[in-house]
Amino acid sequence: MRQWLFLLVVMLFASSGVVAQDRPNIVFMMADNLGYGDVGVYGGGEVRGAPTPEIDRLAREGLRFTQFLVEPGCTPSRAATMTGRYSVRSGLSLVIVPGTPNTLAPEEITMAEVLKDVGYDTAYYGKWHLGMGDSSLPHSQGFDEFYGIPNTSDETLYVPTSLQSKVPLPPGFEIPSIIEARAGQGVEVVKPYDFDSRPTIDGELADRAVAFIRDHKEGSAPFFLFIGWTYPHYPNLTEPDFEGASRIGRYGDALMALDHNTGRILNAIDEAGLREDTIVVFMSDNGPMRTSTWPDSGSAGPFRGELGDPLEGSIRTIGMIRWPGKIAIGQSNEMFSTMDFMPTFARIAGAEMPDDRPIDGVDQSEFLLGQKSTSNREHLITFTGDQIQAVRWRQFRYYLVDVTPSGLGASRQEGLAGAYRPLHYPLIFDIEADPREEFNQNVYRGWVTGHASQVIEEFMQSLVEHPNPPAPNLTNFRAQ
Amino acid sequence: MRQWLFLLVVMLFASSGVVAQDRPNIVFMMADNLGYGDVGVYGGGEVRGAPTPEIDRLAREGLRFTQFLVEPGCTPSRAATMTGRYSVRSGLSLVIVPGTPNTLAPEEITMAEVLKDVGYDTAYYGKWHLGMGDSSLPHSQGFDEFYGIPNTSDETLYVPTSLQSKVPLPPGFEIPSIIEARAGQGVEVVKPYDFDSRPTIDGELADRAVAFIRDHKEGSAPFFLFIGWTYPHYPNLTEPDFEGASRIGRYGDALMALDHNTGRILNAIDEAGLREDTIVVFMSDNGPMRTSTWPDSGSAGPFRGELGDPLEGSIRTIGMIRWPGKIAIGQSNEMFSTMDFMPTFARIAGAEMPDDRPIDGVDQSEFLLGQKSTSNREHLITFTGDQIQAVRWRQFRYYLVDVTPSGLGASRQEGLAGAYRPLHYPLIFDIEADPREEFNQNVYRGWVTGHASQVIEEFMQSLVEHPNPPAPNLTNFRAQ
Repeated sequence: MRQWLFLLVVMLFASSGVVAQDRPNIVFMMADNLGYGDVGVYGGGEVRGAPTPEIDRLAREGLRFTQFLVEPGCTPSRAATMTGRYSVRSGLSLVIVPGTPNTLAPEEITMAEVLKDVGYDTAYYGKWHLGMGDSSLPHSQGFDEFYGIPNTSDETLYVPTSLQSKVPLPPGFEIPSIIEARAGQGVEVVKPYDFDSRPTIDGELADRAVAFIRDHKEGSAPFFLFIGWTYPHYPNLTEPDFEGASRIGRYGDALMALDHNTGRILNAIDEAGLREDTIVVFMSDNGPMRTSTWPDSGSAGPFRGELGDPLEGSIRTIGMIRWPGKIAIGQSNEMFSTMDFMPTFARIAGAEMPDDRPIDGVDQSEFLLGQKSTSNREHLITFTGDQIQAVRWRQFRYYLVDVTPSGLGASRQEGLAGAYRPLHYPLIFDIEADPREEFNQNVYRGWVTGHASQVIEEFMQSLVEHPNPPAPNLTNFRAQ
Repeated sequence: MRQWLFLLVVMLFASSGVVAQDRPNIVFMMADNLGYGDVGVYGGGEVRGAPTPEIDRLAREGLRFTQFLVEPGCTPSRAATMTGRYSVRSGLSLVIVPGTPNTLAPEEITMAEVLKDVGYDTAYYGKWHLGMGDSSLPHSQGFDEFYGIPNTSDETLYVPTSLQSKVPLPPGFEIPSIIEARAGQGVEVVKPYDFDSRPTIDGELADRAVAFIRDHKEGSAPFFLFIGWTYPHYPNLTEPDFEGASRIGRYGDALMALDHNTGRILNAIDEAGLREDTIVVFMSDNGPMRTSTWPDSGSAGPFRGELGDPLEGSIRTIGMIRWPGKIAIGQSNEMFSTMDFMPTFARIAGAEMPDDRPIDGVDQSEFLLGQKSTSNREHLITFTGDQIQAVRWRQFRYYLVDVTPSGLGASRQEGLAGAYRPLHYPLIFDIEADPREEFNQNVYRGWVTGHASQVIEEFMQSLVEHPNPPAPNLTNFRAQ
């Protein structure tokens, strides 16, 4: 009943089309390696020994996706989010590690740049992981300001573990930093990102985000605030307040700290009186790390696989969006990709998407605003490095590589992701009938091949005029 | 907010203690082999290609358990529910197949008998599976009337598959029947339970249940109505109305039919004006069948294991209870066993539990009625046949048998459940940190052994005065 009432409100609002002059603020929160099964409303939270009341509250006040789809790793997923394109198109389809030349090119056009063009104030606080060079960092890619870490949290482990091993770090792997930068100005190193600052970084991000929101209370310009939380990515060292808060150790403690910090942002929006004028997104960049970091690791819920795999547990994750009175409240099983945010927000803000390059994200504004009951997406390709590994088409997953438990087993036991054995005959799973992708259906549903091939063919056609940059892999990324 | 309001209401109602004179009706629905991951509010439903709006509605109007615990098979779980005791105490710790002598003994005291003693009208419609003999059937065990199947739905497969195999059925495996019986009267065979009646049986149960509720609208006696749904137990042949209703074939179609029939019961309660006076329970008897019946099979959600295993996916399932204004609305991660219903309802109805035998169920009325914030349960033993296989103690599971994927693998691939390899050193899993029970913690948390041993020791002590009947297993059940 309540849901229908909201839908009615939404339809009244929406009947006159998207009103570009009323540009909403956008607060975009991205958690790091949070699993589908970790958060309360997705079946985790208290059941995982770590309640998540604030994220649950956001979910209940907005639209929660049960088919929110991403790429299978931090860099690829963030590249896809920021450019609205498959990461392979920007050469960022593998996770960046220090010393590699992979980086977000100046020619790429980001979500921040298109919003900036229509007058948005923009800020990025948190983990970036799209390149360390000055031209790749947020302040050079459409954000007015940046505070955070260029790469990722695993690097805090490098110095301690090299010391423990009594061996020096290789060049380029020196101690990482928390940095600060403003558009048109240089980068300032604030302090080392190490075991001392790891526990406090998300609290700092929340402090800055809260201040940013407060400062925009009276402002006329709409804003785009991106918060790249570092939790619950290993190593999950938490603030003293959260040590021992959960029943499962570090991972649960970090989950609760993440939840608390998310709540601080939601409260700041309310206190600034901006609730109705602000779109809030909360998502995870990819599935959880499980085997190689356990017990500092998450749950993929009912799905098989983890970060790095092309499996559902790696690419289906947590995603929700709130815009009071505009976006319906409830749960949706329609497909939504993280690439869809950029064209959707461009449309809502009256901004222009680039028209000189393929865009893989689709405009979902009509679906979100209740003018259309279905999503504009029914397929998604999953890449790792230069390989197409799988295609999602409606409820089916079509694999070109061996992701059976035995095919995956060897690399998984070692905590590796990567290039699986190519197949000469596809694997086809029905993800609704078989959420753990265990019962191959390529005999009874061989016709899925036709649909999947068409998706691949369309992608390949797009490369004729717009070839991808050389895709990175372990043997070629240093040679470039 | 709404939750607190209800809690307040509950506390006002409850402050004067349980009022036995206002005996509520009890409508108890048990689904067959429904998995934790199959229903919408538990992460399934639409996500599984089969929406379950009626069960979801019931969950939202009542208290939904995320740690609802059962025994790992139909007969054991139903024996435990009906007697408030571990099934091994009544010799029913293996699934009854035709030709075996296992049966519910006349000396056992059932939930229906204790409620009958304080004036309840009682009826059982549906699957029984606690013995086929006249003295074991519901009409001899406290129910005024019975309509349904003495055993289980797999038997509908026996005639067709023996015909297909060109071999006769062994004696005792003849075509099963739908029967009807009244207390003090004999059993009447209504019709065969076969491929013709399999699709319509649950609709028939709903018809009878709706009529029973309607007939009790004006009645002064409270009633205990037990509905043993036959869905979604294989073979899931559904009514024409539901053929093709879901996106995943038979299993999903049956799930939607089950949901529809459940909704019919809820509507009948409302139409009779009995909503406030009626406790409604909806639960599954055990985890889903997965490997050996796929695609006619369910999902255990984030847990590993299936029907017959001692694993979490087998013994943690769907369970919810509604009593408007009395039992709080929301979700609880407190432990609740299906054995707890009998002593809880006895207390609420002012009935007497038997005092001449061990009772393993605990009275949860104070917890349900909001007089106590925690459940009265923190452990559970899991048996198969005559073996103690595992102990649940708080968030830990302690195994005496090899349930590692490799230990389980061989039997699982054959679709078998049974006696796993005994261990000389336990396996210990933290079910919150590791919902799929993959990371053995017997080194870091070896102290769980002390708690688990105490639970086992207390159980063993109870056997000194009250030894179990001979436990059935494949080698001895015909010899008894």
